[in-house]
Amino acid sequence: MSTNNQAGLVIVPEAVCQQVIDRPSAFTAVESVFAAMARGDAYNFPVIREAIGYADALYGFKSGFDRAGMALGVKSGGYWPGNADQGLTNHQSTIFLFDPDTGKLTALVGGNYLTAVRTAASSAVSIAHLARQDAKVLGIIGAGHQASFQLRAAVEQRQFEKIVAWNKSPERLASLAAVAADLGLPFESLEREEVAAQSDVIITITSAKEALLLNDWIRPGTHIACMGTDTRGKQEVDSALFSTATVYTDEVAQSVSIGEAQHAVVEGLVAHKDITPLGDVINGDHGGRNFAEEITLFDGTGVGLQDLAVASTAVELAVEQGLATSIAL
Amino acid sequence: MSTNNQAGLVIVPEAVCQQVIDRPSAFTAVESVFAAMARGDAYNFPVIREAIGYADALYGFKSGFDRAGMALGVKSGGYWPGNADQGLTNHQSTIFLFDPDTGKLTALVGGNYLTAVRTAASSAVSIAHLARQDAKVLGIIGAGHQASFQLRAAVEQRQFEKIVAWNKSPERLASLAAVAADLGLPFESLEREEVAAQSDVIITITSAKEALLLNDWIRPGTHIACMGTDTRGKQEVDSALFSTATVYTDEVAQSVSIGEAQHAVVEGLVAHKDITPLGDVINGDHGGRNFAEEITLFDGTGVGLQDLAVASTAVELAVEQGLATSIAL
Repeated sequence: MSTNNQAGLVIVPEAVCQQVIDRPSAFTAVESVFAAMARGDAYNFPVIREAIGYADALYGFKSGFDRAGMALGVKSGGYWPGNADQGLTNHQSTIFLFDPDTGKLTALVGGNYLTAVRTAASSAVSIAHLARQDAKVLGIIGAGHQASFQLRAAVEQRQFEKIVAWNKSPERLASLAAVAADLGLPFESLEREEVAAQSDVIITITSAKEALLLNDWIRPGTHIACMGTDTRGKQEVDSALFSTATVYTDEVAQSVSIGEAQHAVVEGLVAHKDITPLGDVINGDHGGRNFAEEITLFDGTGVGLQDLAVASTAVELAVEQGLATSIAL
Repeated sequence: MSTNNQAGLVIVPEAVCQQVIDRPSAFTAVESVFAAMARGDAYNFPVIREAIGYADALYGFKSGFDRAGMALGVKSGGYWPGNADQGLTNHQSTIFLFDPDTGKLTALVGGNYLTAVRTAASSAVSIAHLARQDAKVLGIIGAGHQASFQLRAAVEQRQFEKIVAWNKSPERLASLAAVAADLGLPFESLEREEVAAQSDVIITITSAKEALLLNDWIRPGTHIACMGTDTRGKQEVDSALFSTATVYTDEVAQSVSIGEAQHAVVEGLVAHKDITPLGDVINGDHGGRNFAEEITLFDGTGVGLQDLAVASTAVELAVEQGLATSIAL
């Protein structure tokens, strides 16, 4: 999309993002940009991530350009661990879009809600393209802020009949149980091994620094979406899974360096060439799941282009629906 | 400065920046942040600069954090060579400030005018601290958009009696001549060698890719501020000058990699340890000019913290003077 830069700067605050971006629109935006990345029409710029030495904050930027979607911009922000005590979200982010034809700032979009929906859309796109059609049980590892978003997006991709989940603090699973109830689905809190034993699809969405799921636990035919690892040192699943599973990702360069694949790469269990961009499957250049018993793993590292894609859609819809503010700059 | 984040997002458009930021306030902001950098209170994050493969544009980000000035943020934008044909500035930039305590976006500030004044303030700070007190003739190499800003800021630092200048297209010197006339100073268009022969202070502000001033041309006692080189491959002065002159810079890491010193470093004429941060002189940790005949060279590479410093001042003054717009996000 391209906003009319004569109209000045379009502002789409958090509350409007929540009004205009539903799961199907986030799904479409993320699927399209994964496809554009795989075709070479879109690329992410290097990520800046700095411990600023103040308030324990991590601050940085994810940015890129999608020539197909004409989205140029940056998501700026970071993680402030003390925010919760002040009644604010620990993750704070804003997305800025620029006109690719002139470089002028065209839009400023709240990034907190969009980060959650674009991350959920990412695993949902992986489920749509890689999970078995007959998947019945969905497992969730983790119960933080993003877990509910993941659950809601995932259940729209297959006819799930049951949700099973684990979290380090089991009492925090209450929020996921409530979402499952809202969806009319039975919910069970289980040990990790039992989650693996029952699930056809598993989403990991934690900030773990060691494997929570072992290779031996994973059933044939399972699809696993690892969504938590976005930094060197984080890890959610057994690196041996990268030998067992067929591996897909949003961006191979991120997967092998800061994504879930980082440990398996160091151990020589997987290499750059063994990992397929999910966009290749979306584009029909790769067949995806080869057989029912195959284990597929999607390493969702989170790229700036996802943010730009959902933000562009948010601007488009907010302008259409008269919900955007426009100011002269 | 720290804006009140309860008040929402403060917007300071280009026109307001021009109203509130004068040369003394830009000078103070830049001098303070150079001092903070040298003390280790402020640091610049890695620079992102990408040829996006569309509209011949260069796009990117300069960012950093100044704990002393409590300025956290990013200047985002770039260079769109086709803009002039559409009646727009080729350089387009916007500065975003964040609350270091929470990560919330606090201000959005037009960056085009501020980029010009902060760059002019940078050479002015170098003149204030390094040029001979009795400097009489100011030489300018280059006559682009920024040259007039450089001239106006420089003449406030010493009792200059004459301006001499050179530009590749001499007819473009008319704008500089008009500024000199406005300042009541005689102006002469000269060949480069003659500019060097007459000047006590020289500012180079070009996008040249080879030396415009030779080492042998520079008189003893001259102060040279090289302000044009901010990218690998650019060059304004003879690399041999880095052996002859005492060398200062805004940021040593940028000076040796993308600044004017890059060529002399490759040739082994200067090393990281030979280059002094101008902030050390401002802080009194380095004595500055040692003797009247010494040639001093300031490599002004341009850092993100300068942008954040002037933008913070612009927000403070615009809010004080009731010229800022505030919106809820």
